[in-house]
Amino acid sequence: MNNSQYPSQLIEQAVEEISKLPGIGKKSALRLALHLLKRPEGQSVQLASSLIKLRTETKFCTTCHMISDEDICGICKSNKRDESLLCVVEDAKDVLAIENTGQYQGLYHVLGGIISPMSGVSPSDLQIESLVKRVGEKGFVEIIIGLSPTMEGDTTAFYITKKLKEYPVKISTIARGIPIGGDLEYTDEITLGRSIVSRISLDD
Amino acid sequence: MNNSQYPSQLIEQAVEEISKLPGIGKKSALRLALHLLKRPEGQSVQLASSLIKLRTETKFCTTCHMISDEDICGICKSNKRDESLLCVVEDAKDVLAIENTGQYQGLYHVLGGIISPMSGVSPSDLQIESLVKRVGEKGFVEIIIGLSPTMEGDTTAFYITKKLKEYPVKISTIARGIPIGGDLEYTDEITLGRSIVSRISLDD
Repeated sequence: MNNSQYPSQLIEQAVEEISKLPGIGKKSALRLALHLLKRPEGQSVQLASSLIKLRTETKFCTTCHMISDEDICGICKSNKRDESLLCVVEDAKDVLAIENTGQYQGLYHVLGGIISPMSGVSPSDLQIESLVKRVGEKGFVEIIIGLSPTMEGDTTAFYITKKLKEYPVKISTIARGIPIGGDLEYTDEITLGRSIVSRISLDD
Repeated sequence: MNNSQYPSQLIEQAVEEISKLPGIGKKSALRLALHLLKRPEGQSVQLASSLIKLRTETKFCTTCHMISDEDICGICKSNKRDESLLCVVEDAKDVLAIENTGQYQGLYHVLGGIISPMSGVSPSDLQIESLVKRVGEKGFVEIIIGLSPTMEGDTTAFYITKKLKEYPVKISTIARGIPIGGDLEYTDEITLGRSIVSRISLDD
């Protein structure tokens, strides 16, 4: 054994790299490395090459900045989408999540993050300039801000709202309230308070 | 969007490969892929190359079959180990786990799996021949079978015991019982039963 707790430097290096991934600690990384050692060589090679291809060949849509195989993504290119609606989201995961609901037919704009002074993310790091330009050029009727109801999300929403003030476009945000199936008793007071303030009329 | 739920075939391929790893589903795989896309290209390249190196360059000790950087591993090469004791384990993880306890100074023999007819693993797939040869050649005093107390572990232990019957060597197994800190009340009846049968004298 060398001085480290690992029996081989190759293992140590692999564990080091794997454990840089979010949610994977050294112990899980070791388990994954030992798993790969037991599997045919082809599996490791394919995994590695798909990771490199992913990182080096993936493009981003030049219009909405969504991950795409081509210069313009399928959603922007589609003629079946409602071009009067634009939903602003933090990243690609959110587009996939909203698409999965089947409830939204408009277009998207992927910011690539949210404003977070704590993590050193400022407005200039995000696709906000291009959002403003896009709103100025296209005739959107409504911009839906689809950001998480966190401090960073609210800050970003506030910043975007201010930036878009000069355009004659309605700005809305996705509803905050008690999750469907959630228990009123266990809902935190801020959410509960907001859900009372933004109560929904059942009359119409 | 293409027909799949992923915005890009490169993402889809990466998710496909990542989710082949144990304990990582499609959703986690997508999260990992999107994470890598946000990180510098170097991280993906290093991760990929460490995986390929791991799989193609890792050697196994020709004596104990432990993962090793050289032909003979550090434990087998060391002159600080007790050469009268040999602990037989399922795989490399178990060597690391036992080494971490700091309670064992003997040598190891890594089987590379356990006998499992259900998974198609037969004795000939394991390093049992080489164990028998090693026991025949070296003057071990005791062989400690360090396998999990499962049906497969017990089957393997039984098979090895039979194979080693002709050699004048003591064969033991790691103790089974209530885990330290475990609660007697919640211990399953088989473990509790065994812990009564193999009770330990406190007299000496």
